[in-house]
Amino acid sequence: MSAPSEGARSRRSGSTRRQFLLGGAVAGVGAVAAVGVDLALNRADADQAPASTPMNGEQTVPFFGDHQAGIDTAAQAHGLFVALDLHDDVDRDGLARLMGLLTDDAARLTQGRAALADSEPELALAPARLTVTFGFGPNFVARAGGVGPSWLATLPAFGVDRLQAEFSDGDLLLQIAADDPLTVAHATRMLLKDARGFADVRWTQQGFRRAYGTERPGTTMRNLFGQVDGTTNPEPGTADFDEVVWSADGWLAGGTGMVLRRIHMDLDKWDRLDRSGRDASVGRTLANGAPLTGAEEFDEPDFEAKTSLGFPVIPQFAHIRRARGDGAERIFRRGYNYDERPSGASVSESGLLFVSFQADVDAQFVPMQRRLDELDLLNEWTVPIGSAVFAIPPGCAEGGFIGETLLT
Amino acid sequence: MSAPSEGARSRRSGSTRRQFLLGGAVAGVGAVAAVGVDLALNRADADQAPASTPMNGEQTVPFFGDHQAGIDTAAQAHGLFVALDLHDDVDRDGLARLMGLLTDDAARLTQGRAALADSEPELALAPARLTVTFGFGPNFVARAGGVGPSWLATLPAFGVDRLQAEFSDGDLLLQIAADDPLTVAHATRMLLKDARGFADVRWTQQGFRRAYGTERPGTTMRNLFGQVDGTTNPEPGTADFDEVVWSADGWLAGGTGMVLRRIHMDLDKWDRLDRSGRDASVGRTLANGAPLTGAEEFDEPDFEAKTSLGFPVIPQFAHIRRARGDGAERIFRRGYNYDERPSGASVSESGLLFVSFQADVDAQFVPMQRRLDELDLLNEWTVPIGSAVFAIPPGCAEGGFIGETLLT
Ligand code: HEM
Ligand code: HEM
Repeated sequence: MSAPSEGARSRRSGSTRRQFLLGGAVAGVGAVAAVGVDLALNRADADQAPASTPMNGEQTVPFFGDHQAGIDTAAQAHGLFVALDLHDDVDRDGLARLMGLLTDDAARLTQGRAALADSEPELALAPARLTVTFGFGPNFVARAGGVGPSWLATLPAFGVDRLQAEFSDGDLLLQIAADDPLTVAHATRMLLKDARGFADVRWTQQGFRRAYGTERPGTTMRNLFGQVDGTTNPEPGTADFDEVVWSADGWLAGGTGMVLRRIHMDLDKWDRLDRSGRDASVGRTLANGAPLTGAEEFDEPDFEAKTSLGFPVIPQFAHIRRARGDGAERIFRRGYNYDERPSGASVSESGLLFVSFQADVDAQFVPMQRRLDELDLLNEWTVPIGSAVFAIPPGCAEGGFIGETLLT
Repeated sequence: MSAPSEGARSRRSGSTRRQFLLGGAVAGVGAVAAVGVDLALNRADADQAPASTPMNGEQTVPFFGDHQAGIDTAAQAHGLFVALDLHDDVDRDGLARLMGLLTDDAARLTQGRAALADSEPELALAPARLTVTFGFGPNFVARAGGVGPSWLATLPAFGVDRLQAEFSDGDLLLQIAADDPLTVAHATRMLLKDARGFADVRWTQQGFRRAYGTERPGTTMRNLFGQVDGTTNPEPGTADFDEVVWSADGWLAGGTGMVLRRIHMDLDKWDRLDRSGRDASVGRTLANGAPLTGAEEFDEPDFEAKTSLGFPVIPQFAHIRRARGDGAERIFRRGYNYDERPSGASVSESGLLFVSFQADVDAQFVPMQRRLDELDLLNEWTVPIGSAVFAIPPGCAEGGFIGETLLT
């Protein structure tokens, strides 16, 4: 795929963005809830806190469609990633049966309806924007007798990697996300109950962002370094996004590629760095995420600007300069923070579940990761400890099932 | 302490309760936020969903006062419980220094201000009703050279217990709760950084309830069995609550006793039980939590009512009959669900962080737990796997510190 122009990529005003994001939040919400969103929108326009926000327990994201939900959906507060390994005896027919069951569960639960034979149906009544997104690992596609995509394999080794098998790879991925943790717990259990005749859990990774209601809709999340994380990102609903994310190839057409990297962040070491060092490491300020050459979060970074001494204002080693490169490769990031429970003398065990979606992992993600592997000051405080790649099949219509383009 | 009358205990209308709970939510919220609460209140009165709810990122619960916050505070969505073990060399002066540091951190963070030397000050700006509650284990009080309370010890052994050391006991407890998970993560790290010169983490237990905004304020939570859990409970702000919860004894006056039991819930086994069996095991319906002798959640159970065959409608083995006994013992429950990440063939690893507050653990909690140990059908599906008791010291005024009544 070709890269869109620099201008299309990142020049946009805060208010356009806000409108977009609120618009995004309305999609798939019933009429009554939309009234509440209008209210929040008015308040947001007044730019005075605290405003009001609609109750969101009953808000739903449509399940059926050209694309799976949970990719262009405004990220929910809680995201759980579960990788399954298929039992040896599951064949192509078994895979179709499995995906039929899971599709049915997801179609019901995301709409606030109990799953078939739901054992705790009352827990299904508050979907809180639940989405369930399925991804296939290399072994799933092989078992289905399918071919490609060519990038569906373990990523090349990078120098920074310290990968652990317990956070890597897998045959079938479930991304289960909602604004409510009880909803995530219940949906996960229902899905895994139906999957357990076919597959075992390989790993589970739990992530979070700001809770719904804590910040205005559309506020870019902060990660556990305190950084505003997610500013320069294609906008769902734009042609730009569609080009970066959706594949047009064979059974994957309308689907995408997912990279999930568990990246440990050394907060103790980060705490020893002063603020100007922190700002320089990324090329943006901690205060509001503005580029070092600008004042507001969405100001376009000026990579040519020089200090009075002739050094680049955004350093050569800065994460955003290295990640962007010449702009030829683009990805859509939709990650989550993780924070495991500390023990003994440790006071935190934290990081980022880096999640990116892109049509072609080899052409878009790999060159970027290679560049960051060569030079990126953030590497001083971050270590990838898990890695997995999945093909995310397209969505399906009512009556169909996720994976049907591969399995039928 | 004497038990209040049956009537005072549990006869109350839904609307009184709703008013109370919304009123409770207003306490400690700034004027602007209170407007939003009024709005939610109006909507709640109209009893139509979905309504609107104020943004709550900036909502604060007062830190200073006669009692510590986090006990009579309407339970937040996320609760983290951390138990620390003191280093051997920490003496009485060290304990006072430690509690001074932690008090200062908590006083700032709960009000949305960065901790002293906060390494990620931007993460402190959305308190989302953060509370930090401190509790002392037996060894803390002994190290302080203090005496009592007499119930501050490992609980007597119960037949149902399968306790694991990794979830039990501890010298110093931190209960860190807020409606936002990033706020909990940041506050925990700040507190543990100041504690690490004095103590190591013994265990950490993470719990959740419905997210803020998912359900109307005042909705009783559901646990992972799908049960409405928390119906019959003293109401904060009433004389009844004060009598059940607050101690009047010595350095603990204005404080209370906390029992934390990690109770595994076997969801697979529970799923094999039919609905009438589930309802009977508790004595209330799963549908809306009404007693088997009533129609609405807050209807008073009639323990004398008999079926046409002469059996009690609320069975002898029902959890609420056994827990209540003759009503002589009362506790205030403020628990959280837990849901650990499943692995292999398991599809969930779930339960309840049962938390109760009571002035006298031996007089109030122990007889009740003994009764449940002897007979309670719920024991078929639940197993206590962790247990800890803490003395929760009173609150303090600005300039003071939590624990000063013991340590100065
Ligand atoms: C724990 C590890 C990481 C942290 C803490 C981190 C943090 C950040 C931050 C703070 C920004 C600036 C704000 C924004 O535009 O979002 C950023 C930008 C970006 N990051 Fe990362 N990042 C991490 C890993 C990665 C990885 C592994 C990749 C891809 C291989 C990546 C790709 C990007 C891209 C493409 C941008 C936008 C650059 C542009 O302005 O064009 N990041 N990251
Ligand atoms: C996983 C274990 C447990 C579960 C699932 C559970 C569940 C419930 C449920 C559904 C109710 C009825 C609704 C309500 O009033 O809240 C209830 C009531 C109650 N439970 Fe539990 N419970 C558990 C453990 C305990 C323990 C260990 C105690 C104390 C030792 C306890 C004490 C009570 C009390 C005092 C009541 C109110 C009884 C009354 O109506 O007077 N529960 N519990």
